[in-house]
Amino acid sequence: MRIAQVAPLYERVPPLYYGGTERVASYLTEELVDQGHEVTLFASGDSLTKAKLVSPCAQSLRLNPNCVDFLAYHVLQLEQIFQQAHLFDIVHFHIDYFHYPFLRRQDIAHVTTLHGRLDMPDLVPLYREFCDMPAVSISDAQRTPLAWIDWRGTVYHGLPRNLYRFNKQQGKYLAFLGRISPEKRLDRAIEIAKRAKMPLKIAAKIDAVDRCYMEKEIRSLLDHPLVEFLGEIDDGSKSDFLGNAYALLFPIDWPEPFGLVMTEAMACGTPTVAFRRGSVPEVLDDQISGYVVDDVEQAVEALKAIRHFDRARCRRVFEERFSVRRMAQDYVKIYQRVIDGRVRAHSTPARQSGAIVPRRDEIAAKGNGAPLAAAGCAANLSP
Amino acid sequence: MRIAQVAPLYERVPPLYYGGTERVASYLTEELVDQGHEVTLFASGDSLTKAKLVSPCAQSLRLNPNCVDFLAYHVLQLEQIFQQAHLFDIVHFHIDYFHYPFLRRQDIAHVTTLHGRLDMPDLVPLYREFCDMPAVSISDAQRTPLAWIDWRGTVYHGLPRNLYRFNKQQGKYLAFLGRISPEKRLDRAIEIAKRAKMPLKIAAKIDAVDRCYMEKEIRSLLDHPLVEFLGEIDDGSKSDFLGNAYALLFPIDWPEPFGLVMTEAMACGTPTVAFRRGSVPEVLDDQISGYVVDDVEQAVEALKAIRHFDRARCRRVFEERFSVRRMAQDYVKIYQRVIDGRVRAHSTPARQSGAIVPRRDEIAAKGNGAPLAAAGCAANLSP
Repeated sequence: MRIAQVAPLYERVPPLYYGGTERVASYLTEELVDQGHEVTLFASGDSLTKAKLVSPCAQSLRLNPNCVDFLAYHVLQLEQIFQQAHLFDIVHFHIDYFHYPFLRRQDIAHVTTLHGRLDMPDLVPLYREFCDMPAVSISDAQRTPLAWIDWRGTVYHGLPRNLYRFNKQQGKYLAFLGRISPEKRLDRAIEIAKRAKMPLKIAAKIDAVDRCYMEKEIRSLLDHPLVEFLGEIDDGSKSDFLGNAYALLFPIDWPEPFGLVMTEAMACGTPTVAFRRGSVPEVLDDQISGYVVDDVEQAVEALKAIRHFDRARCRRVFEERFSVRRMAQDYVKIYQRVIDGRVRAHSTPARQSGAIVPRRDEIAAKGNGAPLAAAGCAANLSP
Repeated sequence: MRIAQVAPLYERVPPLYYGGTERVASYLTEELVDQGHEVTLFASGDSLTKAKLVSPCAQSLRLNPNCVDFLAYHVLQLEQIFQQAHLFDIVHFHIDYFHYPFLRRQDIAHVTTLHGRLDMPDLVPLYREFCDMPAVSISDAQRTPLAWIDWRGTVYHGLPRNLYRFNKQQGKYLAFLGRISPEKRLDRAIEIAKRAKMPLKIAAKIDAVDRCYMEKEIRSLLDHPLVEFLGEIDDGSKSDFLGNAYALLFPIDWPEPFGLVMTEAMACGTPTVAFRRGSVPEVLDDQISGYVVDDVEQAVEALKAIRHFDRARCRRVFEERFSVRRMAQDYVKIYQRVIDGRVRAHSTPARQSGAIVPRRDEIAAKGNGAPLAAAGCAANLSP
């Protein structure tokens, strides 16, 4: 299949530091190449890829001090895409909604993965107009505010198999990894650690917008013998940081659309204790790859239960549900459906919310400890 | 002529407070209606107009606390324009470059006025691609960094004739009106006032981004018996503030693309003492409607010369060169050329930089004190 992947230009693909969308676009692009597809990646010029790279800018924008007008490059990127669109069987957009009015008027097979939260009122009038644009969600929960648009499936993010090392040994500290921002609730993580009397290591970046929150709400909480603040860590250190942990704390307070870090921990064999918001109950198999809780009390209880946690099974769930191979296969199925729909000159049934990926409940239905190989996916399982 | 005007959605058209682009779009729209054209205004829903209003949002965006995603509404606005484009003879965009990839692929007669500074390196690759998009500059100087794109003319901004009251009486204070920001150089204005031993009244707003500059560089300078800081004033107060002044100080340090405030002062009969940057030498007729200077020394000298300034002649220059009637007529000529060029199936000669509005040098050539009526524009002159 001749596939175009369209990534935002803010970060390199893959990103040097933060950047979930560009990271997933990179994993997907490289895997599609590996699976034999002819892939063109529209992304910043410093991106690293086995695909053909087409770029409107030599450097990614966020860390380029000379760049002040981000939109200019995204407009130029659109032009590059439209000039080459006839070369592709499908164009897969990861840039939100910017391209919609164009696609209305172009004969291009396309699909858009929405990577962000969708509960902003500003999006309602936009999507009322563009409810016919074929879209992919990254969790079912993400769809809730815009349940009525033309969803073609949910595709959970996948990670390259060897990106994170499995660690069969249970660690002794709790981990917090992410941004320090009100919706991530580091304060809750600290409270959980204190109540559980366990050390907490915090690897977190602080965006400019969150500096005030950090100083006012968080700084004083860090001054505690159980709490260690490491600052931002790079990608290479994440595997050790997560793999050596007893558990990852994810006590969020917002409708998380996916939560990549839960799958990163899972890949290391480390369980996540997460609050029931957004995608959490879909991404975590409760008591298998993590614990879905409703309050601090339950989180502390979960930490006790984790003493007997099966880290190898957790890793198997990761390989079953969150491998990049599975993600790419899911997308190719959706691409094919979009293409077929156009060829048959009638569109694939819209507003049909059936995801085509293995779901939490499908796996959970096998019962605790049931061999995942029974699901017919032994080929994917690590020994 | 069936004309669409496309304004940004940040401010109401006309704006409640700040907002040069929306202000000019409003003046132009209302005048085109008055001149008998059938005009549709694409703008925020709270805009006030005699034209037909089409809007993707009930309220303008900047002052709407519920609005976080500005781009969503601009994408929706584009869709609205494209759905109605067949109804217009010409679509006139005031929203920078956002629409270019669309227009490449649509059969729409269009022209875009570029309202901002064009000297950002980010714009070069964009306009290298889109050098064929018909554009209008608001001064010749504005074009310099992108001299090679398809300019169809320079149209200086125009103001409604009665928006600012002419005051034949020379005032006693110097005026500074605008933002407090490094490129506006309020510090220089204060230095000029002190050197000239004249009182300076400052009517200025402070953007969030400039608050640090205000505190570090400006605050201490305000503590001087000659200096009075009024804060931000509303539109209704501007006529008195400018009209009662001895002179407006405009000691800028950036490539000002137009500088509306110079024409506002001119309308009141008040001369501007301005530094020779960007559009200044084009907008001001030196020693007739203002004084173009190169340093503080020259500014102080100019203030002495202004003692004998002919305020009535200054007002006549305003009416001659910066009336909204003239602006609208200039634009209609450009619209007609764009339409004719399409009808003849070959485009109007590109990269031809001839402005069609009366220029500073045309008027200056008449010599100091020569009656402007000699230029054949007596009908425009106030008694």
